[in-house]
Amino acid sequence: MQIIRSAGEMQAWALARRGEGRRIGLVPTMGFLHEGHLSLVRIAKAQADLVVLTLFVNPTQFGPNEDLERYPRDFARDAALCEAEGVDVLFAPPNEEVYFADHSVYLTESQLSVGLCGGSRPVHFRGVLTVVAKLFLLTQPHVAVFGEKDAQQIRVIRRMVRDLNFPVEIVGGPIVREADGVAMSSRNKNLDAASRAVAPRLSQALFAARDAFAAGERDLESLRGRVLEVLGDLTPGALDYLELVDDETLMPVRGVWQRPVLMALAVRFPGVRLIDNLTLKG
Amino acid sequence: MQIIRSAGEMQAWALARRGEGRRIGLVPTMGFLHEGHLSLVRIAKAQADLVVLTLFVNPTQFGPNEDLERYPRDFARDAALCEAEGVDVLFAPPNEEVYFADHSVYLTESQLSVGLCGGSRPVHFRGVLTVVAKLFLLTQPHVAVFGEKDAQQIRVIRRMVRDLNFPVEIVGGPIVREADGVAMSSRNKNLDAASRAVAPRLSQALFAARDAFAAGERDLESLRGRVLEVLGDLTPGALDYLELVDDETLMPVRGVWQRPVLMALAVRFPGVRLIDNLTLKG
Repeated sequence: MQIIRSAGEMQAWALARRGEGRRIGLVPTMGFLHEGHLSLVRIAKAQADLVVLTLFVNPTQFGPNEDLERYPRDFARDAALCEAEGVDVLFAPPNEEVYFADHSVYLTESQLSVGLCGGSRPVHFRGVLTVVAKLFLLTQPHVAVFGEKDAQQIRVIRRMVRDLNFPVEIVGGPIVREADGVAMSSRNKNLDAASRAVAPRLSQALFAARDAFAAGERDLESLRGRVLEVLGDLTPGALDYLELVDDETLMPVRGVWQRPVLMALAVRFPGVRLIDNLTLKG
Repeated sequence: MQIIRSAGEMQAWALARRGEGRRIGLVPTMGFLHEGHLSLVRIAKAQADLVVLTLFVNPTQFGPNEDLERYPRDFARDAALCEAEGVDVLFAPPNEEVYFADHSVYLTESQLSVGLCGGSRPVHFRGVLTVVAKLFLLTQPHVAVFGEKDAQQIRVIRRMVRDLNFPVEIVGGPIVREADGVAMSSRNKNLDAASRAVAPRLSQALFAARDAFAAGERDLESLRGRVLEVLGDLTPGALDYLELVDDETLMPVRGVWQRPVLMALAVRFPGVRLIDNLTLKG
């Protein structure tokens, strides 16, 4: 496995491999890899000749009071996991290889990115789209794999690919969960014991609504009520949002279920914000 | 010469040629071609194996009260000129091939695009960067050629290329002028007779300052005064702006000339806004 730190070297490698007709798969990450990330690597390997995993904790997608400094990091462990999974290139640039001091160009999205996490984190998706566009141009992938835990993110990225004509296929990887249902996230490490004890309630609440839906419940207010009922008191956390939105447009839905609905929620624990989601399909 | 109307077909062509190791040169235009555009085609031909000229009057770079509807168009003439210059592909998509009805992703630049034309045309550079990014992704050029008449535009595009890591070399083509010094522009056609009679004053004023600079004048306020003196009364036009800015950062400069200074001006004539510029180099 090759470890690349330089943006220019990464792009030269990618353009050369493209020139040889090789198919490149990309897995963008912020590191501190877990089984969720590794499942994305396996999807990428099945769809491409060469897999590039990028490891970059992107400062522009963190707001001023968020957890950029506390975001967990362990490069040696990440590199070993990549090597074991058969990653071809681990691209792990320092900040100054990614952003010039006078960086001034950003990508913005004005429809899908406004609500949900975009409401709680105003600059988040601007930062995500900007860095993903850069990573696409630096690694020249044919296919890029993103986790479906970040439900809004993958939809916003698909919109960027469509609207800007990136020649990249976006593939989603299903959420990977701990044994108790907690969606895997690098941030789980930062949960204190009391928060970790409450964390399984996020998925339990979503699963309860899914079970009610499977049993025939189609009233969205009832399904929403079922989620809130199981969530209960989240102390030491607090609900940031719970939204039922159209799975495609992310616009809020009301009344009776008619087409796929994304149930998405976020909970703020001390120093850690967790998200989870589930789509109600017919 | 191949004429392509479909975005998908354009991108497939470009990726296939790249896969064959061919070097692609791009000349983005809004059509109604003149000698300025053709000079860019010749530069592209000298630097690439294949030249793509794009013809698209981009609605997102026009403000609501600007001249989108009046922008001159003559496809048959443009196609004949491209053919005669040896253009390989003329990409002339209809609007709906470029923008989905619910298009929601834009590129913005926050430093170089704020003053000069960006001050007079608030959404202009957002539209320019968005469409140029799309054209880069659709035509996959190794090199792209832009006219230096649009002095701010080429600098903003270079910044986009740098900040987003587009693997594209940006080359500037010198301003091409009519016999009386008027910078060639597709919009010149829309000047009424009285405006056309005044139009040579733009370049005359810039040349007067250049002559004073060549004769040793280094006081920027005096050089600015010289431009205004020659511009005189522009009726039926009116000065939109005259700015002396650092040639690289586009920040206003004052006092004594120290490094390359861009003198840029815009004049509003009835229904037509003209721009011109000149760099004072040591």
